[in-house]
Amino acid sequence: GAFAAPAMAQTNVTVSGLVDNYVGSMRMAGDASSSRVLNSGGMTTSWFGFKGTEDLGGGLKANFKLTSFIQADTGRQGRFPGDTLFSRDANVGLTGSFGGISIGRDLAPNFLPTILFNPFGDSFTFAPLILHADVPLFNASGWTNSLAGDTGWSNEIIYTTPNFGGFSANIHYQLGEVPGDNSKRNVGANFLYFAGPLALTGFYHNVKVNNPLNVPANNVQPAGNIPLPTGLTATEQKAWMLGGTYDLSVVKLFATYGQTSHDIALDDKTLSLGLSAPVGAGKVLASWANTKRTGSAIGADQKRNTTSIGYDYDMSKRTDLYAIVMNDRITNRDSGNSFGLGIRHRF
Amino acid sequence: GAFAAPAMAQTNVTVSGLVDNYVGSMRMAGDASSSRVLNSGGMTTSWFGFKGTEDLGGGLKANFKLTSFIQADTGRQGRFPGDTLFSRDANVGLTGSFGGISIGRDLAPNFLPTILFNPFGDSFTFAPLILHADVPLFNASGWTNSLAGDTGWSNEIIYTTPNFGGFSANIHYQLGEVPGDNSKRNVGANFLYFAGPLALTGFYHNVKVNNPLNVPANNVQPAGNIPLPTGLTATEQKAWMLGGTYDLSVVKLFATYGQTSHDIALDDKTLSLGLSAPVGAGKVLASWANTKRTGSAIGADQKRNTTSIGYDYDMSKRTDLYAIVMNDRITNRDSGNSFGLGIRHRF
Amino acid sequence: GAFAAPAMAQTNVTVSGLVDNYVGSMRMAGDASSSRVLNSGGMTTSWFGFKGTEDLGGGLKANFKLTSFIQADTGRQGRFPGDTLFSRDANVGLTGSFGGISIGRDLAPNFLPTILFNPFGDSFTFAPLILHADVPLFNASGWTNSLAGDTGWSNEIIYTTPNFGGFSANIHYQLGEVPGDNSKRNVGANFLYFAGPLALTGFYHNVKVNNPLNVPANNVQPAGNIPLPTGLTATEQKAWMLGGTYDLSVVKLFATYGQTSHDIALDDKTLSLGLSAPVGAGKVLASWANTKRTGSAIGADQKRNTTSIGYDYDMSKRTDLYAIVMNDRITNRDSGNSFGLGIRHRF
Repeated sequence: GAFAAPAMAQTNVTVSGLVDNYVGSMRMAGDASSSRVLNSGGMTTSWFGFKGTEDLGGGLKANFKLTSFIQADTGRQGRFPGDTLFSRDANVGLTGSFGGISIGRDLAPNFLPTILFNPFGDSFTFAPLILHADVPLFNASGWTNSLAGDTGWSNEIIYTTPNFGGFSANIHYQLGEVPGDNSKRNVGANFLYFAGPLALTGFYHNVKVNNPLNVPANNVQPAGNIPLPTGLTATEQKAWMLGGTYDLSVVKLFATYGQTSHDIALDDKTLSLGLSAPVGAGKVLASWANTKRTGSAIGADQKRNTTSIGYDYDMSKRTDLYAIVMNDRITNRDSGNSFGLGIRHRF
Repeated sequence: GAFAAPAMAQTNVTVSGLVDNYVGSMRMAGDASSSRVLNSGGMTTSWFGFKGTEDLGGGLKANFKLTSFIQADTGRQGRFPGDTLFSRDANVGLTGSFGGISIGRDLAPNFLPTILFNPFGDSFTFAPLILHADVPLFNASGWTNSLAGDTGWSNEIIYTTPNFGGFSANIHYQLGEVPGDNSKRNVGANFLYFAGPLALTGFYHNVKVNNPLNVPANNVQPAGNIPLPTGLTATEQKAWMLGGTYDLSVVKLFATYGQTSHDIALDDKTLSLGLSAPVGAGKVLASWANTKRTGSAIGADQKRNTTSIGYDYDMSKRTDLYAIVMNDRITNRDSGNSFGLGIRHRF
Repeated sequence: GAFAAPAMAQTNVTVSGLVDNYVGSMRMAGDASSSRVLNSGGMTTSWFGFKGTEDLGGGLKANFKLTSFIQADTGRQGRFPGDTLFSRDANVGLTGSFGGISIGRDLAPNFLPTILFNPFGDSFTFAPLILHADVPLFNASGWTNSLAGDTGWSNEIIYTTPNFGGFSANIHYQLGEVPGDNSKRNVGANFLYFAGPLALTGFYHNVKVNNPLNVPANNVQPAGNIPLPTGLTATEQKAWMLGGTYDLSVVKLFATYGQTSHDIALDDKTLSLGLSAPVGAGKVLASWANTKRTGSAIGADQKRNTTSIGYDYDMSKRTDLYAIVMNDRITNRDSGNSFGLGIRHRF
């Protein structure tokens, strides 16, 4: 396709996405040394995809989404080896006065409450809350992410309520598809409330199925990829979180608190605090998350503290530059300092 | 991309596709129990892709297609592990007064005659004829699909005749690409004839090469993935089918009959009957297929009977809802009942 | 999407690509026999992808590219097993009066000088210079391509100078991302100069990292996939090439000369000569490349001579047909003759 008059037009589909790459030096808690990197997804996981909406009349609409995470530093598909092509979204649904229903692969109940209520948003690289919730460390620390079941669920039905004066909620159900055993499934819900300068959120989930891969099967312990010292594996996780933001104009304040528990003795408690403040054509961002991990399954208590400070400069509504420094600490592990300088472009 | 005036326009390519997801309970003949599922492709295998046509003048056109099967319940690419990215279509060609030629990966000769002459169309989940022809059962029954070589062929040249008063035909040739051995190839042909309420079809193929994977090599026995009791493998399959439909307005009738034979003693005979009837804003669909499998390679004769009844409701030209029940039986195996309730959206 | 008025428009992204398939008979030097094939990429490696540009004002623009190599004969993604989804391009950057910067996966410094200065362009099937530079032979000859590190680099920063009266240059740097070891990286540069009928080019690279796969790690010997007789592996390659073209209108002349050296005793010297001549609605193309491989790591000296002659007929600006014959010879190996007849369509 070239920059000429259209000979043929798209009617029903929008192609969109985001490319975010940064250069920096990364050292997480437990890493033996720093790595100079050029990586994808400093602020937002890069993606592309296809979306569309059809007006069915009477306020009813049909919708679909097919969107794909990518690693824009190497061109790899997915977030990690084995991720599915459209692990970000693969769903079809209806919206209307009744609210909405989505069928397929779509958000997990934890996703919107965690990314909307911390100042670094959906950064799986530098947002302390997201790192603690969703990103395992594959190093000597053996630290796994707190929330099981991924940030997207496959084989899922979501019912979304209408918006009641700023309040909306989502009910999530994932079929486990185990022949002869319907007890294997994920369930959860969340709510979002926006009222002027105030916003509130909360989620709950009960997870028995990993996503998008069911490896190792029957193991939903955080990350599901690192054996516990006791050799135990969890097959069920319950988690909840509450959060709020308040916008004082000169600064917006962020706070969340949440817990996880399992069918083994393993519990996480995570507190996060943050702020964003408009400065020049951008925003100063600062965030801290603290997770306390307890339970006989892991032996002695562990604590993790992660702090990020950054500046996000808007070149336009679609393109921004960012600079972020981060400190990451875990009990009895080497602490790590990281920084990144990047560009994010939406299309 | 957002819903604004175009800053830059597509000129030469159309992005299109289909997302079809359903919830239901599946139990095929030979399955030990039912599975509650949320699966992709209840009525049509979900896909997306890119197509374009260029007018070269003088009635000549250049065409390309790059289209991809997807599993919209998990976001996986392809129909099964190892399927290629553009296994639905990856071809370039010319059309004109001479007819058309396509070069690349494109339809197998069996595809259009089977999907156009049964009331459930290209449902690889609920259309009895398509299940018997194309979908192996990975369960205790060891039942494999009848037609070898896949519904699409790689490394293929198709010549399509012009339309002669409703009649057109396709000649298919797939190169085997075996160094020093040009005898390894697939050949086939089909025809389609439309005359008012009547339509007729037929295909023949001689298959020596699997698609899109050549695993196991030198084995084109149905599905190519389940060893025969005798340990034999077929390296060549011949198959043919004839079919017709007649539209009486209140009801459209469907019938096909076909056979396969191999270079070992293994023969399938498949009869299918069906009807569709407009009811309200949709259609009642009913179809039955019967396959008799014989030959010393499998020992005692086997029979499979599959029956589906459904209703397909059109919300618009692009979006429909469907509800289908199915019964599947194989000689000396547990029979299975399935049902699905789904939504299909074209874009 | 159908051929109707746009209900929703693309604003920020162009979908484009190229499908090139040919039928022919291939036998490279060292092959035991010929193979009849229907293959992708006779003239240009087939691809598709997404690109966009955003005007940021003041002459500054943001750009992204996500493009994917494909095999349009089978629908496979990538150029070879394990290639990444967007191995052709996965980058974001800025352009302005300062020149341009690209961050992500993008061209290697060898790419433009080699494809622009031989008459068969970016044909990885029939261009003698490109075959010698970039395409290993997986046959008895054990002949590997001369240039290490791929034609695209991951984790790369490119700085492009402004155009100074026809002269422009690119500086390339690829981070190796080895924890605690910043010496592992690729660096390179090239220039292009266009002045009326004359064009000149040159590149230099120092490669320590393979792309897009780092397998085998610590081995950048040509192709990195065939062990040397001595068991040695190279961990560093230096390479340079100079080239020029002169357009006499009735014929355009092409010439390049380049060398490689390694941290083991292994050196390649490649000379290529070529011409293109407008004939009818197309061009006659002819090209010859000669590589002399020396060094104790491989034992006795080896020579390879590859010659291609073809005709490329333009059906339109976007679609062409081509016919090419090729002869390939390596010291003490069976020589091979190949031919291909193909169609290439840009969209």
